[in-house]
Amino acid sequence: MLSKNRIKLIKSLHFKKFRDESNLFLVEGEKMSLELIRLKPECIEQIYGTNEFIEENKIIEKFEKITEKELSQISTLKTPNKVLIVCKKWDLKENINSRNEFYLALDEIQDPGNLGTIIRLADWFGVKNIVCSKNTADCFNPKVVQATMGSIFRINLMYQDLSKFIESKNLPVYGAFLDGESIYQKARAPKGILILGNEGNGISKEIENLVSDKITIPKFGEAESLNVSVATGILLSEFFRN
Amino acid sequence: MLSKNRIKLIKSLHFKKFRDESNLFLVEGEKMSLELIRLKPECIEQIYGTNEFIEENKIIEKFEKITEKELSQISTLKTPNKVLIVCKKWDLKENINSRNEFYLALDEIQDPGNLGTIIRLADWFGVKNIVCSKNTADCFNPKVVQATMGSIFRINLMYQDLSKFIESKNLPVYGAFLDGESIYQKARAPKGILILGNEGNGISKEIENLVSDKITIPKFGEAESLNVSVATGILLSEFFRN
Repeated sequence: MLSKNRIKLIKSLHFKKFRDESNLFLVEGEKMSLELIRLKPECIEQIYGTNEFIEENKIIEKFEKITEKELSQISTLKTPNKVLIVCKKWDLKENINSRNEFYLALDEIQDPGNLGTIIRLADWFGVKNIVCSKNTADCFNPKVVQATMGSIFRINLMYQDLSKFIESKNLPVYGAFLDGESIYQKARAPKGILILGNEGNGISKEIENLVSDKITIPKFGEAESLNVSVATGILLSEFFRN
Repeated sequence: MLSKNRIKLIKSLHFKKFRDESNLFLVEGEKMSLELIRLKPECIEQIYGTNEFIEENKIIEKFEKITEKELSQISTLKTPNKVLIVCKKWDLKENINSRNEFYLALDEIQDPGNLGTIIRLADWFGVKNIVCSKNTADCFNPKVVQATMGSIFRINLMYQDLSKFIESKNLPVYGAFLDGESIYQKARAPKGILILGNEGNGISKEIENLVSDKITIPKFGEAESLNVSVATGILLSEFFRN
């Protein structure tokens, strides 16, 4: 049975302040949890699973059986799903073993759902590194973790001063704008840094000055703009199609 | 000042059952509301605006001034934004004046955010008609309306028996699958019906049997799947790029 203090500790991890202080975060749901156990077992602090989850998956270490009711007390989900894991954050840094020729750079993406979807997209297209400006959403936010569908365990994500990062690389710098060159105009190799900007304000002036190629998804209808994760998908598809 | 009964009526429209019974739904926020006033003024029942909204936008008809506090009582948003409009639903039917050579067909899309994002995408690429299976999410759900960013006022969306609809058209039928032909393999004209399936289960067996071309977004990394609205964006981009 979960003590009041334990419940309080776990619920505090719903909030960034306490995730930062404790260096812990939460992973939830059967699929995500099994991915975590497979890919980053060293990060697991404690598995809180229902009887069903523990038996079905033959969990033999670091687990505590809890009831459905207890799970719903500590979960961030409307419909909790069998298991919640308290997990140590890992170091957020570049994977220097990858070929490192293509980076996704996020300039103040605010919505957790968008960030999670972008991480999942990077994992689909084989992008190994994502660099985020320091005021981009927290990748350990439960909504981000959930939206990645497990891709967060495979992608290298880091928070850095974007300007410095871009200047440190000798690569073409692509920025997504509403008034750039059509992405359909010419083929582009998957080499460079592709920058996506904030949902409301786009790429900041400071970063815009570092862009070598402004690119645009042509519009054939009347919508004012595209959702940033959808735009990221279309752009990645263009970079990797050849 | 809003009466208790009025508050109750408006709040009932947060739920599908009451939207269906009353044939009304809610539009919220400054940008969305101004689009509604511009594009479908005949559907407006009543505008509930804060003083600021009414003055700034010179609203002279069908309005009632309310306080910020009253707005937060009736709003579906965490951060209500100046105005909420009670709006009559319009008839959901095909626009037979458009050239009608390209349809987006949604087979049981469940997530309101996905449906809204897909409507916005259709509006970006100039797709005029979206046909939804009868168990697809309600397009008058406040989360759908919000995610369309106004595109719901421009796109023709209808709920129909998908099989019958597909069979009634003499068009190529494309379906998004994980094991179809690569979309990069050959150019496709924007003519046909493009089907996207349910978030968890994909396209149903019944509809799969009507598909003439199974298509796939090739994977270069390790994610198991793509978010359905992102996949729709990448596919529409491929159909309209030429």
